[in-house]
Amino acid sequence: MYSTDAPATQDRQQRPEDRFSMTPFATLIEQYKAIFFDAYGVLKNAHGLIPGIDGTIDALIAADKPFYVLTNDASRSPDQLADSYARLGLPTITADRIVSSGMLAREYLQLKVNHGTVAYLGTDTSAHYIENADLHALPIRAVNLDDAADITALVLLDDEGFDWNTDLNKTINLLRRRNIPVIVANTDATYPVRGQQVAVAIGAVADMLERIVGKQFIRFGKPDAQLFMFAYDLLREKMPISKNEILMVGDTLKSDILGGNKFGFDTALVLTGNTPVEDVDLRIKATGIIPTYVCESAAV
Amino acid sequence: MYSTDAPATQDRQQRPEDRFSMTPFATLIEQYKAIFFDAYGVLKNAHGLIPGIDGTIDALIAADKPFYVLTNDASRSPDQLADSYARLGLPTITADRIVSSGMLAREYLQLKVNHGTVAYLGTDTSAHYIENADLHALPIRAVNLDDAADITALVLLDDEGFDWNTDLNKTINLLRRRNIPVIVANTDATYPVRGQQVAVAIGAVADMLERIVGKQFIRFGKPDAQLFMFAYDLLREKMPISKNEILMVGDTLKSDILGGNKFGFDTALVLTGNTPVEDVDLRIKATGIIPTYVCESAAV
Amino acid sequence: MYSTDAPATQDRQQRPEDRFSMTPFATLIEQYKAIFFDAYGVLKNAHGLIPGIDGTIDALIAADKPFYVLTNDASRSPDQLADSYARLGLPTITADRIVSSGMLAREYLQLKVNHGTVAYLGTDTSAHYIENADLHALPIRAVNLDDAADITALVLLDDEGFDWNTDLNKTINLLRRRNIPVIVANTDATYPVRGQQVAVAIGAVADMLERIVGKQFIRFGKPDAQLFMFAYDLLREKMPISKNEILMVGDTLKSDILGGNKFGFDTALVLTGNTPVEDVDLRIKATGIIPTYVCESAAV
Amino acid sequence: MYSTDAPATQDRQQRPEDRFSMTPFATLIEQYKAIFFDAYGVLKNAHGLIPGIDGTIDALIAADKPFYVLTNDASRSPDQLADSYARLGLPTITADRIVSSGMLAREYLQLKVNHGTVAYLGTDTSAHYIENADLHALPIRAVNLDDAADITALVLLDDEGFDWNTDLNKTINLLRRRNIPVIVANTDATYPVRGQQVAVAIGAVADMLERIVGKQFIRFGKPDAQLFMFAYDLLREKMPISKNEILMVGDTLKSDILGGNKFGFDTALVLTGNTPVEDVDLRIKATGIIPTYVCESAAV
Repeated sequence: MYSTDAPATQDRQQRPEDRFSMTPFATLIEQYKAIFFDAYGVLKNAHGLIPGIDGTIDALIAADKPFYVLTNDASRSPDQLADSYARLGLPTITADRIVSSGMLAREYLQLKVNHGTVAYLGTDTSAHYIENADLHALPIRAVNLDDAADITALVLLDDEGFDWNTDLNKTINLLRRRNIPVIVANTDATYPVRGQQVAVAIGAVADMLERIVGKQFIRFGKPDAQLFMFAYDLLREKMPISKNEILMVGDTLKSDILGGNKFGFDTALVLTGNTPVEDVDLRIKATGIIPTYVCESAAV
Repeated sequence: MYSTDAPATQDRQQRPEDRFSMTPFATLIEQYKAIFFDAYGVLKNAHGLIPGIDGTIDALIAADKPFYVLTNDASRSPDQLADSYARLGLPTITADRIVSSGMLAREYLQLKVNHGTVAYLGTDTSAHYIENADLHALPIRAVNLDDAADITALVLLDDEGFDWNTDLNKTINLLRRRNIPVIVANTDATYPVRGQQVAVAIGAVADMLERIVGKQFIRFGKPDAQLFMFAYDLLREKMPISKNEILMVGDTLKSDILGGNKFGFDTALVLTGNTPVEDVDLRIKATGIIPTYVCESAAV
Repeated sequence: MYSTDAPATQDRQQRPEDRFSMTPFATLIEQYKAIFFDAYGVLKNAHGLIPGIDGTIDALIAADKPFYVLTNDASRSPDQLADSYARLGLPTITADRIVSSGMLAREYLQLKVNHGTVAYLGTDTSAHYIENADLHALPIRAVNLDDAADITALVLLDDEGFDWNTDLNKTINLLRRRNIPVIVANTDATYPVRGQQVAVAIGAVADMLERIVGKQFIRFGKPDAQLFMFAYDLLREKMPISKNEILMVGDTLKSDILGGNKFGFDTALVLTGNTPVEDVDLRIKATGIIPTYVCESAAV
Repeated sequence: MYSTDAPATQDRQQRPEDRFSMTPFATLIEQYKAIFFDAYGVLKNAHGLIPGIDGTIDALIAADKPFYVLTNDASRSPDQLADSYARLGLPTITADRIVSSGMLAREYLQLKVNHGTVAYLGTDTSAHYIENADLHALPIRAVNLDDAADITALVLLDDEGFDWNTDLNKTINLLRRRNIPVIVANTDATYPVRGQQVAVAIGAVADMLERIVGKQFIRFGKPDAQLFMFAYDLLREKMPISKNEILMVGDTLKSDILGGNKFGFDTALVLTGNTPVEDVDLRIKATGIIPTYVCESAAV
């Protein structure tokens, strides 16, 4: 990226109606037939539920409005993710309302890799997505590089569950020996942890491994269209609905909003996660990713 | 990309059944419920129809098998593309069988940019996709940078139809003034021309402009999933069909085959276009993009 | 680049003495044994000399302090660049004080390409750097792709002097046929033209060509160290001097300041070119490129 | 990188004299006034000295020809590197003949960062380069993110010596809080380990961190010119010598050969390291990096 222009100097011909004022989320619930939510920074964060989100979910259920959680998190199965919402006080976010990048990886394995062993980097619970595709899952630490002819794919699921000091090298050496597809479920570069800190997510690791190995990996996390398509198809089985009757709500411009816009949904950027209020205008101008709305929070 | 490993040194544990032998295309027609074809290098090239393709199309029609042409070419409308097939001797490739990246750009404009003027780089015929979205299309050369408040989007459609000596600079200066979405329809980097030569396509130009401007462009050409989804949805309206009952046929690993595999289709790489026979093994190993089949040609 | 953190949220532990106050350039002239100047945005701009620069040059000559102009501009020979300064009112910027990226390209040709014909993209005057290496220079438009066995290198010198509609394709096809070194003299992505506008420079074009061709080009423009080294060596022939006794003055963080800092010079960012005063803090934090000083201008 | 052209299809107009035949290294020793050697894959590998290298070093000393080792390895001090050569049977590779990327990082710290604490990722022995610049070195694990106002720079020295599971995140969070220069000494992406395997080097990690943080890091390892310049300057203090009287010997095209060529040295690619004999032609054509000579080994 070459650009040196600070966003402040752009858009001299911006029309007043392009400036973002905060939209109360409650008004958005009324306007859309269905809502898709990102998880972290929208429904919950490192400290628990975003305040007031329970009210939002209650309102949607009361209005009989379908909603889904679209998440790049592939660390656990949908059932386990639903359990975690229940423990947070949202038992109505059931497994059937959750679409995770792991599910897209699983669908790929079912269609394209229907035999052999699938190696992975991730938590033991993330292996669900491989086992659920009727394949044998093998964590990289258990791979024997000299006896890897059975390995037919590699899936990068989560930053936890493996030893970075040993398993990244092992992954590279596996890919040097076996010409197998590499599927990246969670494509996030970082994720927020307590205090204003972040941690490296498996998406950034995947990019590093891809640069080293030189082959083309397959990516399913937002902003890729297939996660949005998966949820859209689930919805279309239930009711006739067009793309702009759906609102995608996210805290991150480059995954939730870019992907939602590109797919054709209306989008709402909330400020309870990755995008602090003081940075909104700057980032929208810097990235050129323009949400339909900006809301302080997804709480009604 | 860091990799210095020549593909020849990889895959020591490759199993014999992974080696590609040529598959006669006729056997594939029998096995799939529907076929999706890339255009250039598969159905036609700079010299006209690929020999024998008329036989393939005839066979599909005789078998009442649906087929679509999935092309990144956004230089003309589907009707005009259909006309060009008719002139080449394939009148049965009708406009309703053609899915072009321009159609995805149009859908985006209809959903997300429903007012104002849309600037574009491309041929006058490519402006169809903007006008067909009920928007006013303005070629970059006609844009007045001092009076551009009406411009609500920019679409990059084709490498022809504009003056590279003046209009690339103008495009950049427009994007420095207006914070508008930039849609890249044809994402190809190059396209083949007569004698073993290539020409720079608008996709490579888009990448250069994006690096200069520093904003995130929206891309719809293969390998992006939405082109495949558009065709898949058209098909699903006609008949129940699952992804692996569809064969995507292409000549380019990084667009047709990567995108087709990722979406869940079976894929066939043909050698009548971008991938010469002497390079197949090398490129499959170098890129890690593995077609389900390799065929000399899509001719039966 | 993944970062979504707006610079405003960083550097909470910044010490007061890290904040930039403007330094009067006159005080810097006293403190350094030699000054290196970038050209555009420092000494001159599209409208002529930066006001007061003549005073700066006079002061340097009066103090018998060596100075050099370090420029990525390879469009003309040093003599022609000196002539242009004379016409602007600075006859004391003589050819022997000018170090251009074209000179580095010439040195490379002299050492590494000592026979054959060197093709180029650039102005006819830029061909000086090839001819001055005792090689035959051939503009891309004059290349016969079917008879190019004599071509032993390609140099990318300037964005003007060739037809972008035809010569970029021709360049790519030449590189597909001949495995020859490609030297990029001017690596700038854009350059400013009248009225807040920019034009694409040959550096951005080179990056696009390199991505298409897939080979590694050789780059000599700032921030590459060799331009700084060339000037440093000229100076060291005249006087003993260490790196931090030299001040590099530039208007662009990512070329002048980054390269100057990395080489070991002290650096001064001036605000008369690419970096407007309102963006200084933002860009220094966003890029992490920190000049030793910030000055409104290089005028005393 | 877009290129899909397999090298085999290029260079139809290649002249016979461009084809590489092996050059006996002994003949090269005669032709050059000084030799610069890369370390790994040229002088030594994971198993010890490359067979016959002792003969080469003896021949150079007997001929009173200066030689230097130019290495991206910043894991230990020059004295420690010299000790390791002595243990391998080459006591004549003394510390004064070694130029490591760590020395360039040290020089930068001396010129640009002359106070405060310098954080680092690397072995305890790599901290030499910071301490040798009269600065306090602090491994990332010992950094207190809430009390980091004293930290004035970060140096990335080696892949060993820290816990990847914790210290990469810590590094990112430090850079989010402090706007400090980041110096990458060893820019290698991988390094070979026993039995055809590789390990991720700190250069690839640096690239990942840079993409996450979004700031511009400073890199000193080959192919950057400054490592070559450092050695060239040491040599020029001893004897008058021009660039093409020096031969750079390396096993890696993209660091040793690219950097050596660009700097103006003649270069010899040896096949005892990263570039196996069966891949030479392929890689030279694929990368466009063309050594002056190819030798089986640097043994005489």
